[in-house]
Amino acid sequence: MRTSVGRVPVGIVGAGPAGLLLSHLLHLAGIESVVLEARSREYVERRVRAGVLEQPTVDLLREVGIAERLDREGMPHHGLSLRFDAADHRIALTELTGRCITVYGQQEVVKDLIAARLAADGRIEFEVTGVALHDIDGDAPRISYVDAAGRPAELRCDVVAGCDGFHGICRPSIPAGVLTEYQHTYPFAWLGILAKTPPSHAELIYTHHERGFALHSMRSPELTRLYLQVDPDEDIADWPDERVWAELAARLAVDGEFTLHEGPLLDKGVTPMRSFVVEPMRYRRLFLAGDAAHIVPPTGAKGMNLAVADVRVLARALTALLKENRTDLAESYSDTCLRRVWRAEHFSWWMTSMLHRFGEHDAFQRRLQLSQLRYTVTSTAAATSLAENYVGLPFD
Amino acid sequence: MRTSVGRVPVGIVGAGPAGLLLSHLLHLAGIESVVLEARSREYVERRVRAGVLEQPTVDLLREVGIAERLDREGMPHHGLSLRFDAADHRIALTELTGRCITVYGQQEVVKDLIAARLAADGRIEFEVTGVALHDIDGDAPRISYVDAAGRPAELRCDVVAGCDGFHGICRPSIPAGVLTEYQHTYPFAWLGILAKTPPSHAELIYTHHERGFALHSMRSPELTRLYLQVDPDEDIADWPDERVWAELAARLAVDGEFTLHEGPLLDKGVTPMRSFVVEPMRYRRLFLAGDAAHIVPPTGAKGMNLAVADVRVLARALTALLKENRTDLAESYSDTCLRRVWRAEHFSWWMTSMLHRFGEHDAFQRRLQLSQLRYTVTSTAAATSLAENYVGLPFD
Repeated sequence: MRTSVGRVPVGIVGAGPAGLLLSHLLHLAGIESVVLEARSREYVERRVRAGVLEQPTVDLLREVGIAERLDREGMPHHGLSLRFDAADHRIALTELTGRCITVYGQQEVVKDLIAARLAADGRIEFEVTGVALHDIDGDAPRISYVDAAGRPAELRCDVVAGCDGFHGICRPSIPAGVLTEYQHTYPFAWLGILAKTPPSHAELIYTHHERGFALHSMRSPELTRLYLQVDPDEDIADWPDERVWAELAARLAVDGEFTLHEGPLLDKGVTPMRSFVVEPMRYRRLFLAGDAAHIVPPTGAKGMNLAVADVRVLARALTALLKENRTDLAESYSDTCLRRVWRAEHFSWWMTSMLHRFGEHDAFQRRLQLSQLRYTVTSTAAATSLAENYVGLPFD
Repeated sequence: MRTSVGRVPVGIVGAGPAGLLLSHLLHLAGIESVVLEARSREYVERRVRAGVLEQPTVDLLREVGIAERLDREGMPHHGLSLRFDAADHRIALTELTGRCITVYGQQEVVKDLIAARLAADGRIEFEVTGVALHDIDGDAPRISYVDAAGRPAELRCDVVAGCDGFHGICRPSIPAGVLTEYQHTYPFAWLGILAKTPPSHAELIYTHHERGFALHSMRSPELTRLYLQVDPDEDIADWPDERVWAELAARLAVDGEFTLHEGPLLDKGVTPMRSFVVEPMRYRRLFLAGDAAHIVPPTGAKGMNLAVADVRVLARALTALLKENRTDLAESYSDTCLRRVWRAEHFSWWMTSMLHRFGEHDAFQRRLQLSQLRYTVTSTAAATSLAENYVGLPFD
């Protein structure tokens, strides 16, 4: 079959929040792009992932006209709880920072972005296979793939954006020796469930318990999201629903009023806990954004927000490059992003370290954890530090 | 030789800041004590140790009439520098917290306390040997020792205060199984020097450098105190003066104006880095205070300040016990102290972890350190958090 050859200024690999938002931002700047995605539209619109949007993320989505449904259905939260010593300790996010978070599922952001792109005749190709990058050493990189109908195709681009996640093909396409990898693995994972039941508490609860960390979160007034710290090689078959609920009840127990609302499980899965960064986030005309360049453990709720922050910087850099032939923002893209990335990496590591039970910790380290938790909830400065990171530090 | 037998309400083992201040505070409350010290007066008055007093420590010393020379000679500092990436980043302690630190050597506090106790006819026995505790299970504990003149002696006490430091005899006198020990060792030590030269900078400089941590401090306008992170088993013979100065110059180098003032060395020693806590800090009528109960690495400048905080609580508890036969404050002594102890343990561990070079750290952890340092000096909340711990959280 003959390969169909096309040209586009920006070829984007991956239709997650990073790739779709980039495509939208470029469109607003008058730059065409094509988004290639291995999965189906239905799949990416249903994929349950993060659910906490930082204030800067929400502000950006509003600014670029993507927030109509978010403003209607998103749930602003003005505080969260740290639960330990069998009691809740509220971090008053808005009081401390003037900002808040918005609970709104990543898949909802994805739906809104896909709808906006398609309404503007944006091109997203779902269910493509065999995506590969070529000539990324030069000024005319190409992307080859097989489209949903089985036809071989090629895109000739000025720039390629690698928004294809941690397991994507873009990062490994960069020649060996260019990237430096930084990583850290944690001796635990998260078992997450989505349950059809109203949340048991109006706000998120991050629980430090001697049986392990637990998180009470939500997706909507009818959907509760709950997580349990488990072993990294945990077999999900060992966690029938009753055991999940019993363990959640044990870890979330408090002295006083708290009833854990149970309900049918819609989703159950194990999330590995990993920190990962590559530097730089660019190789010539290939730019990495979001999970393709960095991973955070989910404790800080930073993954999707970092992806949004990356493509905000990237859209400006590509606009300068392609519209004005200015290379300065493209040159500084990686450094600009990495400052925020490392802040989020540290915050995510810090939240993870403070809240989880580490098998290898000795009694001294456990006492330090408790001292840190007590200090965090009693010092205005320390609570503000947590809060300002959680609601999102300003973009610039 | 016949044993001379005496009676005293409070027998205090150790004439460091904890034991001497306790004796002074008890005297103000009308309670007699005897302080027993293995070293000579000259030795304890010359022993170079900590040099940074928290605001609550200074306030207490003023309140109890011990601060006349401190107010004259102590150097109030309203900020300190974190030096990394070859630049200084000032933490404006007073601006951020309304409080400050005072640079005044521990041995000066000791001199002032000894002078005050002797002026009030307080009894301090120096150069005693063979101190041992007896009958600490009951209501009439005894301390036996041999006095400076070689005469065996015994003190019958209502209460014994163990202020004899980490290597003292009081803590090991408590029966096995009573105390829980928490400890942590660090893979480095500090090589400290005292140099006869004016400080090179008006404030303290905590330096994070790839060659290792360094600290620029001072004792007076003519005396500089400097520290270098070294291996824990470092042989001081390998550190001739020229090497010390060269290493300090390398680690303290900045882009811009900074001249390290060299001068003759008056003291050179290696300090191990250790975290240690016992719980509880009391066994019946034996109360532990200061280093006898807990050790912090010196990075947070908390050691002497914690000793002061302990004996402030202890003096009140013993006054209630001995004057009013009220046991409540004695019962709560350990818990009250341990809250502050664990806060200081965490802060000291945190400062140590952020500033030192860890041989076992991988590249990811090194990046986290830098991200944390950059955040600490750019976020008001984070800087305030460091500052409020450094100047000393309020006593109550």
